[in-house]
Amino acid sequence: MFKRLTGAKEASIALLERCRKVARQESLALECSDGRVLSCDILSDVDLPGFNRAAMDGYAVLSRDTRSASASSPAYLTINQECIPIRTGMSVPEGFDAVVMLEDAVKREGQIEVTSEVHPFRNVSRIGEDIARGDMVLKEGHRLRPPDLALLAALGISEVRVYALPRVTIIPTGGELVPRGSRPLKPGEVYETNALMADLYVRMWGGSPRRTEIIPDDEELIKNAIESGLDSEMILILGGTSVGEKDYAPKVLSDLGELLVHGIRVQPGKPTALGAVEGVPVACLPGYPVAALSALYLFVRPAIKKMAHLADTVPMKRARLARKIASRPGYLSMVRVSLKDDHVVPIMSSGAGILSSVARADGMVMVPEELEGLEAGDEVEVCLIE
Amino acid sequence: MFKRLTGAKEASIALLERCRKVARQESLALECSDGRVLSCDILSDVDLPGFNRAAMDGYAVLSRDTRSASASSPAYLTINQECIPIRTGMSVPEGFDAVVMLEDAVKREGQIEVTSEVHPFRNVSRIGEDIARGDMVLKEGHRLRPPDLALLAALGISEVRVYALPRVTIIPTGGELVPRGSRPLKPGEVYETNALMADLYVRMWGGSPRRTEIIPDDEELIKNAIESGLDSEMILILGGTSVGEKDYAPKVLSDLGELLVHGIRVQPGKPTALGAVEGVPVACLPGYPVAALSALYLFVRPAIKKMAHLADTVPMKRARLARKIASRPGYLSMVRVSLKDDHVVPIMSSGAGILSSVARADGMVMVPEELEGLEAGDEVEVCLIE
Repeated sequence: MFKRLTGAKEASIALLERCRKVARQESLALECSDGRVLSCDILSDVDLPGFNRAAMDGYAVLSRDTRSASASSPAYLTINQECIPIRTGMSVPEGFDAVVMLEDAVKREGQIEVTSEVHPFRNVSRIGEDIARGDMVLKEGHRLRPPDLALLAALGISEVRVYALPRVTIIPTGGELVPRGSRPLKPGEVYETNALMADLYVRMWGGSPRRTEIIPDDEELIKNAIESGLDSEMILILGGTSVGEKDYAPKVLSDLGELLVHGIRVQPGKPTALGAVEGVPVACLPGYPVAALSALYLFVRPAIKKMAHLADTVPMKRARLARKIASRPGYLSMVRVSLKDDHVVPIMSSGAGILSSVARADGMVMVPEELEGLEAGDEVEVCLIE
Repeated sequence: MFKRLTGAKEASIALLERCRKVARQESLALECSDGRVLSCDILSDVDLPGFNRAAMDGYAVLSRDTRSASASSPAYLTINQECIPIRTGMSVPEGFDAVVMLEDAVKREGQIEVTSEVHPFRNVSRIGEDIARGDMVLKEGHRLRPPDLALLAALGISEVRVYALPRVTIIPTGGELVPRGSRPLKPGEVYETNALMADLYVRMWGGSPRRTEIIPDDEELIKNAIESGLDSEMILILGGTSVGEKDYAPKVLSDLGELLVHGIRVQPGKPTALGAVEGVPVACLPGYPVAALSALYLFVRPAIKKMAHLADTVPMKRARLARKIASRPGYLSMVRVSLKDDHVVPIMSSGAGILSSVARADGMVMVPEELEGLEAGDEVEVCLIE
C-alpha cells in the first residue's frame, strides 16, 4: 500500500527542515502583544526610576547630616528644612540623598531625632537603578509576558515591533463533507469538523489560520486550492491522504512540489503525508479525526511553533499507568488516556474514527516504536490535550 | 507596623472561601468556546456515525454470502449486485452489512473472489458506534478543547451553554500615577503599569477584566470605586496597601466589609490585604510591581480559576539550582530565577521595585517559610511565568 513508511521522528525533522521562522513584522499596541515575540532588541530611552525614589515612608535627609549619630549622641534635624516628610514612591527632593524610616525617626517639637548614621542612598531607589538610559531591556526573540509589557509601559513605550503570526491555510477535502449547520445530513454525509479543530489549534500554537471552503475529491480543485494558499507560510490539507483511488492529496503534492513523506509509522495517523510546494511546507492530515489530532500534535505543532519563533514545550504530566497498554511494535503509538487520582488510565476504544474517545481523554501517552507496550505501574509522561 | 502577619497558605484559603464559582451562563458559537467551561451536560440528539460507515476501501457485501469461503472454496460475488465498490467513509448501502478490503478481493470478470469468511460488520463503523442518540457527550464543568468542539460540530451542534467569565474590576490607585502615554512625566510621577499587568493576567487565567481610571490616594474616592465595582465577581485594588499614612485600601476594606488579612508572610508581597465587601472578594495588591506579580500568582490566580470553574494548574518545570538561595525564615519567598541549560539560576537583584528582574526571569522558585534557603544542587520546581 504505502511505498515506504517513515519513522515519526524522521518525518517531523523532514518537515521542520522546510519550515522557516517568519521574518514579517508588525507593530502592535502593548495591550495586544501578550504572548507575541519581539522582532528587535529594545533599548531604553529613559531611566527607571526616572528620579531618586523613596523606598520607605519616613524623612528625606542629607546623609552627611547624620554622620556619627548614635543613641547617646543623636542628630536633630529640623522638619521641612533639614529633613522633609516623604512617602514610599515619592521623589527624594533636590539636596537630599537618603531616607530615614518613620520608625527610626523620633519626632520632637519640629525636629526628628536620628539615633544612627544613614549612608548615602539608604532607603532610596536611585535614578536608573532598574533600567538605565541605553540599557538593553528585552532582546529580539523574547516572548512578551504581562510583566514584560508592564516594564515597557513603565518606560513610556506604547507600541512594539513583533514577528507576524505564521499564516496557515487549512483546506478541508472530501466529497462526503457538508458545511456545519448548513442543512440536515443525508446518509453518507458528515459535517466538516477537522478544519474547526485545526483552526483552533493553529491559533493556540501561535499561527494565524485561514480556512478555505470544502474541496471535493477532485485532483484539479485540490491543486488550485494549494496554489491559492501559496501566499501563506504553511498549508494543511485535511482528508484524502491515504492510498485509495480518490486520495489525491499526496499525488498533487508530488506533482506541484515535493512529497517528502507518505505513510508514517505512527498509530493513529499513518496515512499522513508531508511535503513542500514552492518553499511552503504542506502537511496532509488523515480525515479520521483522532488520526488528524495525532498528526497535528506530532507534526504541525512543532512546525508552527518554529515558524512563530516559539519554544515547543508541550504541557506534560508524569504519572503511573493504572493498566497495561499494548502497542504495535515499529509504530509510535499515541494512546488516549484519562487521569484519575493521579493514575493514567488508557482509553480502550482505539478506533481513529472515535472522536468521543478524545472527549474522555485528558492526554496522550506516546509509546515509542521500539516497545510492544507498557506495563501497569510504569511511570509515563502524559502529553496533556490542550 | 502590621498588626498580625498571616501565612501565605492561610491567606490564600481565607480568600478562596469568599470566592464562589460563577453561576451566570451564556450561549456561544463553537468557534468562540475554546477553553470555556460547559454549564450543562450535553446529550446527543443523533447517532454518530449517522449511518453504517465503511472503515476501509473495498466492497460492501452481505456477510452471510461469504459463509465458509476459503482459499480452496472461494465465494464469488457479482459486482454491483452481490457486492458494491465502496470507499472509506461512505455509507454501506441497505442490504449489506460488511466490507471486504480491496486487497482481499480479487476481481475477475465482473465478480470478486473472496477467500475467507467475513463476519457481520467487519470493516464497518456501525451507526451510533462513536456516540449513540441519547448518550452523554460531555458533562457540565468540562473545559472545551478543540477536539471536543469538533465532536459537538459532528453532532450538528452549533452553540453551547458555558459559564460566563468572572468579571474582575481592577482599580489602580496612587497620586504618583499618570496614565500611559498621556504626557511626559514630571519628577515623582510614574506611568501606571500594574493595571495593564493585572488585566492581562486576569484574561489569561479565565476572567474578564475591567479597569477603572487611576484613583488618587483619597479614602472617599477609593470607597466609591469599590462600591461601583460591586457588580463584578472580584475586585483588585492596586497600591496603597501598606501601613503608611495614605495607605487607605485596607482601612476602606475594613469599613465597607471585612478585612480578612493585612500583611502576609511572603516576600515580596508582604503588604497584601485580602477581604470581601458584600460577598465580593477583594484583593489589595502592593504597588511595587514585583510584589504585585507575586501576590497575583499566589492569591489572585487560584481565586479567578476557582470562580471560572477551572483547575489551578500552574506550568511547572523541575530542575536543579545552580547557586544557593538565601531566604527569610518564616516567609514564603518567591525568588525570580532564569533557566540556563536546564539549571535554575537565581536572579540576584531582589528589590520588589525592580521590574527588569522579572523580564530576565523565566520563573519563580517558592522557598517554603520553614526554610532559610536552598542549596546549590537542590532539585526545585520552577513556577514558570506565563
